[in-house]
Amino acid sequence: MMNRRRGKNYFKRIDGAPDPVVVEVRRRVHFNEVDILGMVWHGRYPVYFEEGSEELGRSCGLSYRNFYESGLRAPIVQLHIDYFKPLRLAEEFTIRTVLLWDESSRLNTEYYLLKTDGSLATSGYTVQLLTGAESGEVCIISPPLLERCRTRWKAGEFHHQTK
Amino acid sequence: MMNRRRGKNYFKRIDGAPDPVVVEVRRRVHFNEVDILGMVWHGRYPVYFEEGSEELGRSCGLSYRNFYESGLRAPIVQLHIDYFKPLRLAEEFTIRTVLLWDESSRLNTEYYLLKTDGSLATSGYTVQLLTGAESGEVCIISPPLLERCRTRWKAGEFHHQTK
Amino acid sequence: MMNRRRGKNYFKRIDGAPDPVVVEVRRRVHFNEVDILGMVWHGRYPVYFEEGSEELGRSCGLSYRNFYESGLRAPIVQLHIDYFKPLRLAEEFTIRTVLLWDESSRLNTEYYLLKTDGSLATSGYTVQLLTGAESGEVCIISPPLLERCRTRWKAGEFHHQTK
Amino acid sequence: MMNRRRGKNYFKRIDGAPDPVVVEVRRRVHFNEVDILGMVWHGRYPVYFEEGSEELGRSCGLSYRNFYESGLRAPIVQLHIDYFKPLRLAEEFTIRTVLLWDESSRLNTEYYLLKTDGSLATSGYTVQLLTGAESGEVCIISPPLLERCRTRWKAGEFHHQTK
Repeated sequence: MMNRRRGKNYFKRIDGAPDPVVVEVRRRVHFNEVDILGMVWHGRYPVYFEEGSEELGRSCGLSYRNFYESGLRAPIVQLHIDYFKPLRLAEEFTIRTVLLWDESSRLNTEYYLLKTDGSLATSGYTVQLLTGAESGEVCIISPPLLERCRTRWKAGEFHHQTK
Repeated sequence: MMNRRRGKNYFKRIDGAPDPVVVEVRRRVHFNEVDILGMVWHGRYPVYFEEGSEELGRSCGLSYRNFYESGLRAPIVQLHIDYFKPLRLAEEFTIRTVLLWDESSRLNTEYYLLKTDGSLATSGYTVQLLTGAESGEVCIISPPLLERCRTRWKAGEFHHQTK
Repeated sequence: MMNRRRGKNYFKRIDGAPDPVVVEVRRRVHFNEVDILGMVWHGRYPVYFEEGSEELGRSCGLSYRNFYESGLRAPIVQLHIDYFKPLRLAEEFTIRTVLLWDESSRLNTEYYLLKTDGSLATSGYTVQLLTGAESGEVCIISPPLLERCRTRWKAGEFHHQTK
Repeated sequence: MMNRRRGKNYFKRIDGAPDPVVVEVRRRVHFNEVDILGMVWHGRYPVYFEEGSEELGRSCGLSYRNFYESGLRAPIVQLHIDYFKPLRLAEEFTIRTVLLWDESSRLNTEYYLLKTDGSLATSGYTVQLLTGAESGEVCIISPPLLERCRTRWKAGEFHHQTK
């Protein structure tokens, strides 16, 4: 608890592994997202994280639809958020979503919300486990969907993207 | 990351400190809270945590209004959630909110969402820092509001409450 | 537009029809529901309406689960809200949900949000059409689920309820 | 009730008045916005309407900040939504927001959510009254902020915008 890390990474980078997939989405704070102090309510950030991870998933074949069509689910089993600076009404910011290379049946994703001056407002991470849609059991062998994604990843197909 | 702890505590219990304040709220999952799989969307849990912590705050003089009237703010600087079992549409559950004794200017709160069979669906914690409303600076000396709360707490006024 | 009706009814009462089913739920405004002015954001009211209509549905056999198990859906095709007085942070209020007698395949529901002094904060209505889950077509003949509900309704089983 | 008007206008067009201000925003349905049937939950549409009206407000000097700095508020007193076709998970759509010319102290806004094939998914309207921030009273004389907007409007400055 409270081992807060401004700008540090949440997941270890493995030597020799392909670079993380990074997707950036630009966004503005809406009126319904701020609290009585005019700052984004802390519990609204999972919405921002999801907007980032949806774009990332679409860019590398790991969207909800991709999982669904492969008979898979990818439930989030862990969510963590560190709040450094508030985001305010109508403020523009960038959601930088970072998917880490991992060879097991899980997705480790980091999120960095950046103000227009480049400073860090909020960061966090989610952990997802891949399970069979029917069984609900965690996949022991890495499913083909993930293998296809990794093949493209190693081939350098997923450049840093800004939307 | 992924050092998940089903039923373990997030914050250390200090020897000789007063017992945590514990408040329980009973709740049902609403239609608008579940996702396409009929399970509560992972990002909806901060709402549940807040419902618990609001009741706890009201029960021991640490509500938003109490802070406001004392010229204080209590921003959440860290949020963590571990998901063990899904909560489903219309399911009843209990939000157990646990405020830990701490002598600095912070509030460490744990949350346990329990199914009707007593099993753990989800747990997590938040860390709040007390700051001056004007300055935005973290309080160095523990503010009178917190001292009054601690005096009542040591006197055993805050019994385990179910609402 | 703007034919606002404080305390008037939205749906016509049919002479000789059974009294509406009325269910009341008591509720408090949560921190995450208010806007920068400390008032409930206008777009949060459908959540309140749904909390009321879920309780009403459970009380008279018209819950989401009841529809689902009968191969039916009940999509909302119209929503209307009139705002008279704001609800503020931590304020207690009552959601009065009123289901009107109707012999076609639709549900006409009115909502009245009342302050503790009994004054009207907000009112509104929803219209739902009953459709087949498979076909998506509006039911031409009133489905057995609705008939069973109406039989109990005429027998006076649904008294005014407060939860 | 249920006088639903697919493609009809909600507010009367006044002969000789300047054309409405029209702003379009393109958007995709997020995972957290759909219900157990994979369709956007009916109560999520006020969020879409607001995203549209925020862009429109920014484009013609009627943003929340503009009102705030002029000592004004613009509370929504009426909201209406008609649902024609569901929007589904990951679907792209357009929010067309239409501000009608009006010479009193109110804002009449219509919303049209369009699928990529141009068909109408949902439409609705809001009515806002301009009030003094202090007094809470509806402005009897049209405030300068609104006058400035109307001058630019008549000069044809607000072209149809797509973002």
